[in-house]
Amino acid sequence: MDKKISKAVISRMPRYYRYLGALMQNGIERISSKDLSERMNITASQIRQDLNNFGGFGQQGYGYNVAMLHDEIGKILGIDNTQNVIIVGVGNIGHALARFLVPDINGFHLCGLFDANPALKGMEISGIKVQSMDEFAAFTKENQVDIAILTVPHDDAKDVAEEIVANGINAIWNFALIDLNLSKKDVVIENVHLVESLMRLSYNRNNQ
Amino acid sequence: MDKKISKAVISRMPRYYRYLGALMQNGIERISSKDLSERMNITASQIRQDLNNFGGFGQQGYGYNVAMLHDEIGKILGIDNTQNVIIVGVGNIGHALARFLVPDINGFHLCGLFDANPALKGMEISGIKVQSMDEFAAFTKENQVDIAILTVPHDDAKDVAEEIVANGINAIWNFALIDLNLSKKDVVIENVHLVESLMRLSYNRNNQ
Repeated sequence: MDKKISKAVISRMPRYYRYLGALMQNGIERISSKDLSERMNITASQIRQDLNNFGGFGQQGYGYNVAMLHDEIGKILGIDNTQNVIIVGVGNIGHALARFLVPDINGFHLCGLFDANPALKGMEISGIKVQSMDEFAAFTKENQVDIAILTVPHDDAKDVAEEIVANGINAIWNFALIDLNLSKKDVVIENVHLVESLMRLSYNRNNQ
Repeated sequence: MDKKISKAVISRMPRYYRYLGALMQNGIERISSKDLSERMNITASQIRQDLNNFGGFGQQGYGYNVAMLHDEIGKILGIDNTQNVIIVGVGNIGHALARFLVPDINGFHLCGLFDANPALKGMEISGIKVQSMDEFAAFTKENQVDIAILTVPHDDAKDVAEEIVANGINAIWNFALIDLNLSKKDVVIENVHLVESLMRLSYNRNNQ
């Protein structure tokens, strides 16, 4: 795809995928943009515009074929293929995510757990043994790793992220409360800053 | 505050708060919008515009007083006062958040844990005992609860959310992968849809 798709459009695609999956589960085979818009609480024209970025998929007078559109959005999101994921930092959040991601969801396959704390070495979560950071370089050489989940403490995050990208992983799901400015520039980072999300809730509660 | 502040501005405020906190820790007492903009990688004019929504706070030729601005943004976010938080659903994510939120961060005080599973009743996390949902109504009558964290499975989320708001709580931090359309309309909801965040990362990895 040559055209640059806006962040806002991308950020809506997983939600389309979720609604289409639910329609499939309910045995619904086709849907108009109007019906979909009522369910999703966005306008039909927004839906058409969003999907036109990727070539449309709808047919005049028929609407969308639910299974086909679900499938196409899966491809757009890159979740039609297995992506191997590791977790670096097996504290509370890392531990929870390790349980959350097994069994595989949407093609994300958890294949490794790492922690700098030697006391955690060998501990098993969801059938995967925690390895020490000494073993990290060898592991990433022997295994295809597509995405690293960064759940180390704030102060360690920058150094650990540099180690992750130095070992050839170019996508980080970052839970550390830090903006990662890494020396390697073609790294894709998606931040989940939990405390900041909670602060937004606090603001909205106090200013509704 | 009468004026409606845009979602984009609000969503940047926690980040300002974080950077100002770090400056304070490093003993920096004042900062120009130019210096702050370089650290935060946004333009100085963006910073001035954002802060002007709340009355400015900067002084020509002086810049910003770091501690004062940190304090003011804390007040804007409503985190200068304690807010009592409960977690409903003590599975993997709920359990992790219970550990994450103790000790209190930024005035968020965890005061209760609830789960429908009777096997979890009495289990202690971070010094707080898990209660059954039978005890929920009585607890919310006897205790001021400001925010409920919803970490129940997807299929239960809507009903549990209705129970939360029926008991007078009007702010939900929602980790269930569902859009909550509740019967009560003045409820503030902040979604953390983890799988959708991971899908955005996948898209960006596959289209960089």
